[in-house]
Amino acid sequence: MSNYQDIKEQAYIANMQLPKLGLVLFTFGNVSAADRNKGVFAIKPSGVPYEDLSVEKMVIVDFDGNTVEGNLRSSSDTKTHAVLYKHWEDIGGIVHTHSTYGTAWAQSQRAIPIFGTTHADHLTVDIPCAPPMDDEMIKGNYEYETGFQIMNHFDGLGLSYKEVEMILVGNHAPFTWGKTAEKAVYNSAVLEAVAQMAILTEQINANAARLKDSLIKKHYERKHGEGAYYGQ
Amino acid sequence: MSNYQDIKEQAYIANMQLPKLGLVLFTFGNVSAADRNKGVFAIKPSGVPYEDLSVEKMVIVDFDGNTVEGNLRSSSDTKTHAVLYKHWEDIGGIVHTHSTYGTAWAQSQRAIPIFGTTHADHLTVDIPCAPPMDDEMIKGNYEYETGFQIMNHFDGLGLSYKEVEMILVGNHAPFTWGKTAEKAVYNSAVLEAVAQMAILTEQINANAARLKDSLIKKHYERKHGEGAYYGQ
Amino acid sequence: MSNYQDIKEQAYIANMQLPKLGLVLFTFGNVSAADRNKGVFAIKPSGVPYEDLSVEKMVIVDFDGNTVEGNLRSSSDTKTHAVLYKHWEDIGGIVHTHSTYGTAWAQSQRAIPIFGTTHADHLTVDIPCAPPMDDEMIKGNYEYETGFQIMNHFDGLGLSYKEVEMILVGNHAPFTWGKTAEKAVYNSAVLEAVAQMAILTEQINANAARLKDSLIKKHYERKHGEGAYYGQ
Amino acid sequence: MSNYQDIKEQAYIANMQLPKLGLVLFTFGNVSAADRNKGVFAIKPSGVPYEDLSVEKMVIVDFDGNTVEGNLRSSSDTKTHAVLYKHWEDIGGIVHTHSTYGTAWAQSQRAIPIFGTTHADHLTVDIPCAPPMDDEMIKGNYEYETGFQIMNHFDGLGLSYKEVEMILVGNHAPFTWGKTAEKAVYNSAVLEAVAQMAILTEQINANAARLKDSLIKKHYERKHGEGAYYGQ
Repeated sequence: MSNYQDIKEQAYIANMQLPKLGLVLFTFGNVSAADRNKGVFAIKPSGVPYEDLSVEKMVIVDFDGNTVEGNLRSSSDTKTHAVLYKHWEDIGGIVHTHSTYGTAWAQSQRAIPIFGTTHADHLTVDIPCAPPMDDEMIKGNYEYETGFQIMNHFDGLGLSYKEVEMILVGNHAPFTWGKTAEKAVYNSAVLEAVAQMAILTEQINANAARLKDSLIKKHYERKHGEGAYYGQ
Repeated sequence: MSNYQDIKEQAYIANMQLPKLGLVLFTFGNVSAADRNKGVFAIKPSGVPYEDLSVEKMVIVDFDGNTVEGNLRSSSDTKTHAVLYKHWEDIGGIVHTHSTYGTAWAQSQRAIPIFGTTHADHLTVDIPCAPPMDDEMIKGNYEYETGFQIMNHFDGLGLSYKEVEMILVGNHAPFTWGKTAEKAVYNSAVLEAVAQMAILTEQINANAARLKDSLIKKHYERKHGEGAYYGQ
Repeated sequence: MSNYQDIKEQAYIANMQLPKLGLVLFTFGNVSAADRNKGVFAIKPSGVPYEDLSVEKMVIVDFDGNTVEGNLRSSSDTKTHAVLYKHWEDIGGIVHTHSTYGTAWAQSQRAIPIFGTTHADHLTVDIPCAPPMDDEMIKGNYEYETGFQIMNHFDGLGLSYKEVEMILVGNHAPFTWGKTAEKAVYNSAVLEAVAQMAILTEQINANAARLKDSLIKKHYERKHGEGAYYGQ
Repeated sequence: MSNYQDIKEQAYIANMQLPKLGLVLFTFGNVSAADRNKGVFAIKPSGVPYEDLSVEKMVIVDFDGNTVEGNLRSSSDTKTHAVLYKHWEDIGGIVHTHSTYGTAWAQSQRAIPIFGTTHADHLTVDIPCAPPMDDEMIKGNYEYETGFQIMNHFDGLGLSYKEVEMILVGNHAPFTWGKTAEKAVYNSAVLEAVAQMAILTEQINANAARLKDSLIKKHYERKHGEGAYYGQ
C-alpha cells in the first residue's frame, strides 16, 4: 500500500468522472489531487486511456514537478499543476480538459461573459481567458510557464484564485481547480455548461447584456459566504 | 410512514426524471408536488445530488414557505414554489431547471417565438420571458419575489396559468408547472425541445415567420379543450 | 392472434426504433406499416408512451381512415397516413416525427439544399418543403388535407414518391415513407442527419454551393437503379 | 481459419469503434486494415449494419482492388482504399466516415483552420479539403479516382501523408489513415472533435486567428518526433 493511497484514490475517482461527464475524448484531460501535508500530488499518467486507469497507476509528484512515486510518466501537463499547487496554497485539486465549448471559447481568445444566474452561482466575473504566451515562454519550459501565465493573468485582473476557480488559456483550453479534486471536476463541468449557454445566448440575441450587479451578488451569495443558504 | 407519503413519492419520481431527460447538470433543478387538501408540497432538498435522493429526503413545506416535515433544508427556490402554489390554485406541481436551450433564451431576455406545431401543440403564444426584477426585489426576499415577478408578467400579458404552463425568468432560467408534478416535468422537456428548435429555425431563416393563427388554433385544440382527439 | 399480426409486429418494431434513433421526445412521432393485400395498415395508438407500447396495442385502420381492429384510438395523424397509402400505391410504411433538425427546417419553410454526397446517396433533389395549408383546409379535415398537401407539392415539383421518400410540411415537421416501415424509419434518420449537416454547412460557408449534377447522379446511382453496387 | 485472420480481426474491431465513437449512422462508414507482407487489406462488407458484422464477414482485397477472400461484396469505397495503400506505403489502416461536423466542413469546401492546441497536438496545418473531382473523373472510375484526388491534393500542398493523416473530400466527407486501423479510427474521432470546435470558434469570434507558429510547433513536438514526451 502506498504512503499516498488517499490522494491516489481521489485522483483516480476524479479522473474517471471526466469521461462520465462528457468532458474528454480519449486521453485529452487530466486531474490531480494534492496532499498539502506531504507536499505532493497524485496525477494521471500521460496518454493512458481512462478505461485502463487504476489507483495504482496514479503518479506522485512534488510541487517542483519531480516524480516521487510511480512507474509511469506523469501527465505532460504536470508542471502546470505543480506551479499552481506551489503558489496557490489553498488548492487541493486541479483539472485540465479540452472540453468542446470551453475550448472553443479559448480558441476564440474571449473571456466568457456572465450572462445569467447559472454563471453567477459560481463566480461573479467573466470566466477569464489568458492570452497565449510569448514565443520565448513557449520555446522554454512550456508547461511550467503555462502555470505562470495563468497566475499572471489573475494578478493582472485582480482576481483571487479562491473565488474564481477556472480560467481559459487562450488558443488552448480550460483549467479549473478547487479545495478538492472532486470540486475541481465539478468546476470543469460548470465551465462547459456555462460556455455552451453563453454561445447560444449571443446567437439568440447578438446584443445580450451582461447580468446586472444586483443579480450577480445575490446568486453568488446564495451559495458562498456567510449568509449562504444553498445546500445542506 | 409520513402523512405526506403520496406527494413525497410523486416529488421523488418527478425529480428523478430531470437527469433522465437531460434537463439538469448536478443539482441545478428541483421539482415539487402539492397536496391541495393538506395545503403543503413536497420538494427536493437543497444541493443533494440526484443519485443520493430518496423518497424520505423530500421536504414538506406549506404554502407560506414554512417547513412542516423533513430533516434537510429544502431547495433554495422553495419560496418561489410556495408563492405560486398559494396564488395559482389549480397547480399540482412545479419544476425549475437550468436546461441548456431554455436558459440561453432566458439569458437573451427574449420570449420564444411560436414557430411551429410542436410549440402550438402545447400553448398558443410565445413562451413568455419575464424581465429581471428591480434591484430592491433582488436584495429583498429574492425567491419570494421571483414568484410575484412570474405572476405579474402573466397578468401584464393577460395570460392564464392554466393555459400557459411555462415561463422564462429573464437572465435566469425556466419555470414550468401543471396539474401534477409529472405534467410539470413534461412541460420542462417540451420547453427545452421547443427552445432548441426555435434557435435553429432563426439560424436557418433569419426572417422565419411566426405560425399563423389557424394552425396555432388547430394544433392546440387537437390536444386541449372539448373537441380534443389526441391521446386515449 | 390477430389476422393482422404481421403488420402489427412490423409497426411495433418500427415505432420502437424512433426513440432508439433519437428521433422522438415523449409521443411526438408515429410509424405505420401497411398490408396491401388486406388494404389496411397498423399504426401507433395516440399519445401512448413508447415504453408502454406492445404489438397488441397497434391499431388496424383501412385506407379511408376507419379503424378495423384495436381498442385504442389510433394516432391523431392517422388520416394523413391513410391518404398517402390510398394514393401512393407502392408505399408500405410511413413515419412522422418532430425530429429536432428536420422540424427546424420545416419551421423555417425552406427546402433542405443538397450540399453533399450523404444527401445524394438517398435522393437527387433538395428535400422538399410543402407550404402550410390555407386556412380552409386547416379548419376542415386537417390531417386528411395534410396528405393532399404533401401529394400536391410533389405533383407541383414533378417529383415521384418512389424516388423521393421524404418531405417537410412547412411550420410542422417531417414525413417519410418507403417500401416498408423499416425503410421509412431509416429515411427519417437520414433526413435528420442531412438536416443537421445542412445547417452546419451554411454556418461554415454562407455561400456553400449545391452539389454538382455529376456527383448527384454518381452517388444516387451507386445505391439505386440497375447499375447499383452498394450493399449485398 | 483464414490466412488473413489477423487483419480481419483488426478491421472488425476498428469498424466496431465507429458507432461507439458516434462517427457513423447506419452503414455510413468503413475501416480497413492492411497486411503489407501479403499485399492485401481487410475491409468492411458493403451495406452491412455494424450490429451484424463479424470477423468472418470482413472481405480481403489486394492493392489493385481485387477481392481475394470473402463471400460478401466489399465496401463501395474499396478502390479508394486500394489506391491509397498502393501508393502510400507506410499506411496500415484507412477510415472513411460521414461524421457530422467533418462532413459539414467538406460540404462547405473549406479546410479546417488550425485554431488551437487540440488541432496542433495532431497536425501542424489546416485539415486539407480536396476540391470535388472534375466530371470526367466522376463519370469514370469514381472511387479509384477519389484516391488520386486525395493524393494529388496532398502533392499540390506539399504535404506528407506520414505527418498529416486526414483529409476532407469536398462535398463528400472525411478520410483518415494511420500506421494501424486503430490509429486511423483515432484520427477520425480527432478530426470530428476538431471540426466541431472550429465551427464554434468562428461563431464565437468571426475574426478568430489561426494558432501562432510557436504554439503549433510546441504542441506537435510534445507528441511527435524525437523529443516527444507525451504518453508512455
